[in-house]
Amino acid sequence: MPPPRPLITLLTDFGDRDWFVASMKGVILTINPHATIVDLSHHVPSHSVEEAAYLLKSCYRFFPDGTVHVAVVDPGVGSARRPLIAESEHYFFLAPDNGLLTPILAEDRTMEVREIENADYRLTSPGHTFDGRDLFAPAAAWLTKEQPFPSFGRLIDDCKTFRISTPKWEARALVGEIVYVDRFGNLISSLTSQHVKELLEATKRPKMLIRIAGHTIDGLVGSYAEGSMVEPSALINSNGTIEVFIKESNVAQRLKTGRGAEIILS
Amino acid sequence: MPPPRPLITLLTDFGDRDWFVASMKGVILTINPHATIVDLSHHVPSHSVEEAAYLLKSCYRFFPDGTVHVAVVDPGVGSARRPLIAESEHYFFLAPDNGLLTPILAEDRTMEVREIENADYRLTSPGHTFDGRDLFAPAAAWLTKEQPFPSFGRLIDDCKTFRISTPKWEARALVGEIVYVDRFGNLISSLTSQHVKELLEATKRPKMLIRIAGHTIDGLVGSYAEGSMVEPSALINSNGTIEVFIKESNVAQRLKTGRGAEIILS
Amino acid sequence: MPPPRPLITLLTDFGDRDWFVASMKGVILTINPHATIVDLSHHVPSHSVEEAAYLLKSCYRFFPDGTVHVAVVDPGVGSARRPLIAESEHYFFLAPDNGLLTPILAEDRTMEVREIENADYRLTSPGHTFDGRDLFAPAAAWLTKEQPFPSFGRLIDDCKTFRISTPKWEARALVGEIVYVDRFGNLISSLTSQHVKELLEATKRPKMLIRIAGHTIDGLVGSYAEGSMVEPSALINSNGTIEVFIKESNVAQRLKTGRGAEIILS
Repeated sequence: MPPPRPLITLLTDFGDRDWFVASMKGVILTINPHATIVDLSHHVPSHSVEEAAYLLKSCYRFFPDGTVHVAVVDPGVGSARRPLIAESEHYFFLAPDNGLLTPILAEDRTMEVREIENADYRLTSPGHTFDGRDLFAPAAAWLTKEQPFPSFGRLIDDCKTFRISTPKWEARALVGEIVYVDRFGNLISSLTSQHVKELLEATKRPKMLIRIAGHTIDGLVGSYAEGSMVEPSALINSNGTIEVFIKESNVAQRLKTGRGAEIILS
Repeated sequence: MPPPRPLITLLTDFGDRDWFVASMKGVILTINPHATIVDLSHHVPSHSVEEAAYLLKSCYRFFPDGTVHVAVVDPGVGSARRPLIAESEHYFFLAPDNGLLTPILAEDRTMEVREIENADYRLTSPGHTFDGRDLFAPAAAWLTKEQPFPSFGRLIDDCKTFRISTPKWEARALVGEIVYVDRFGNLISSLTSQHVKELLEATKRPKMLIRIAGHTIDGLVGSYAEGSMVEPSALINSNGTIEVFIKESNVAQRLKTGRGAEIILS
Repeated sequence: MPPPRPLITLLTDFGDRDWFVASMKGVILTINPHATIVDLSHHVPSHSVEEAAYLLKSCYRFFPDGTVHVAVVDPGVGSARRPLIAESEHYFFLAPDNGLLTPILAEDRTMEVREIENADYRLTSPGHTFDGRDLFAPAAAWLTKEQPFPSFGRLIDDCKTFRISTPKWEARALVGEIVYVDRFGNLISSLTSQHVKELLEATKRPKMLIRIAGHTIDGLVGSYAEGSMVEPSALINSNGTIEVFIKESNVAQRLKTGRGAEIILS
């Protein structure tokens, strides 16, 4: 077998009906025809940097070492916001400097971040509206052709970040937040299995209550199959966070709640 | 040329906006970076095992010998339902034991089916909600690395199946069912070109009528182009089944009908 | 490294929920397992040949030399319309003879166009409704296996084309048209940076006005970031054409306008 082909993932809010994503892929494959490209998602709500950040954080670790993750949700395209390229122990990340890398940077504070400045890694085009195609795609492709990391541009130590929702103690309860609503309508919170452990230790009780949108859920179930088809249930999901669901139903719609809603463990 | 790369297809109800499908791809490419992955569809209606089964049946044969087809529409994830791996003469199939393989098993009764039990082919993760990523994707990837088929788990001879809609004779008419509505709104039935042949032989007439949702269609046309833009028409489609359509229009919406509707040949 | 793998792109109105696109990919990979397949888009509005043509024109140049572009938006499938295969200096194109290649042919009048006639490059199937799978996909795959171009069928010099919207002078103004509305609702016109230059030279003024749907826009901005979040703005986009937008908003919905609308530079 020949060596595995370099892997590039794409995360955008470009949707899948226009030529935007295909153009990025064409540019990548023109520079490096050996690249394999995987779509993370192109259905981030337009300009929603925080949802893109959550989505990237939720799956980047499942890719092989050396994967180049390109994330372009970029309301500030064409403004002075800098394009970034970052190197962690296992991965590379390319994204605009608008907070998109916040959760990744929080998990790995040793990451080296540079501004993409090198004009050799850019396409020239008439307008300045499509950095996904003209800047991020070619930079990612050149990176898989083993261009040295420092050649992309100067080191940066002041990336823009947003506040990450962190659960807080209030009396003997932990107050978290819904951070993502998935396609099934399931409510994914900022509370993790670690928080559950802390709470049970602090309260010295064997069980807990979960309150959300006026409903109280009595303890966790082990899987979707164990949940109720009528009332909301909660479990620790496959990413280790508390998730609220109604079996085979859209709990976000049923509870009329969503991203940003408060969720309380007690 | 090096040997062709192993091929894995994915069929799910995960949609394309979250990180679910991408995580499965990352897991596969981590285990076997030489794999090629093709999306069958990720837009099966949530938890619709029968539609997923129909979709898989409609295209698995168009893939090269040795293709590994992974289908994860799995309302019972986390319950006691078994994960299956099956080998036919030309393909492999991985799916939960919920009936998803019913049409495939009906077509090939010599298939060997096993339960995926081998923990070496699993990812460990905090929750038990995402077998697509933690169980089916890695098992498929290990299969393409030529792990022996029996190493996955014990033989199964009692897969769950659902009733397959079979047309029935009533007087001198054949009564079938709409089994799928495609994106154009075309109504795909359980009646095949073989049924048409039988009917014409039985009735000794050169022509037939097709009745659906209160409408009567006079015989078959040869292609969409020959259909009416006002009234429903019918033809034998590219999978050899009778399909009802209105040229350049959505017949399901126009006739206010859909999956499960009766269709009668006489 | 082995030689790069042959590249095939797919553009259809098949959507992504049925088995149509996957079947085409299976057919291609059965004939040439070394092919890389890239989706241009499968969300062309049903039967919209002109939108498919615009989309193809907007991105085909970003792919490597030798790429085979397959475009199947085909309201006339099954009729006498001919299937085409065309060779330009850098690319191959396969499409039905319904005007889909109009902008490509307008850009390169030296292209050689043939009718796909050779039955060896076809799949046989029961019905005649799915030329994407049975005719275009296998022909594209055989092309990447270096079958000689003339072996596909006879030369054609009378392809069907549609009228391409060309801006016109009226008094001292240039009147163009909206030719595409993208997923963000941005209005893409038939007016290019070349038209802007001509206008400024003709009027000997440093600035211009853009009128659309009862609104007047005062000159061009350099990027989306410089636009207003309330009023429409205009810029030269990354394909060199004038595009009207409202920053982080859907201008097509806000102005209640779309494809075919008049846009005037003066």
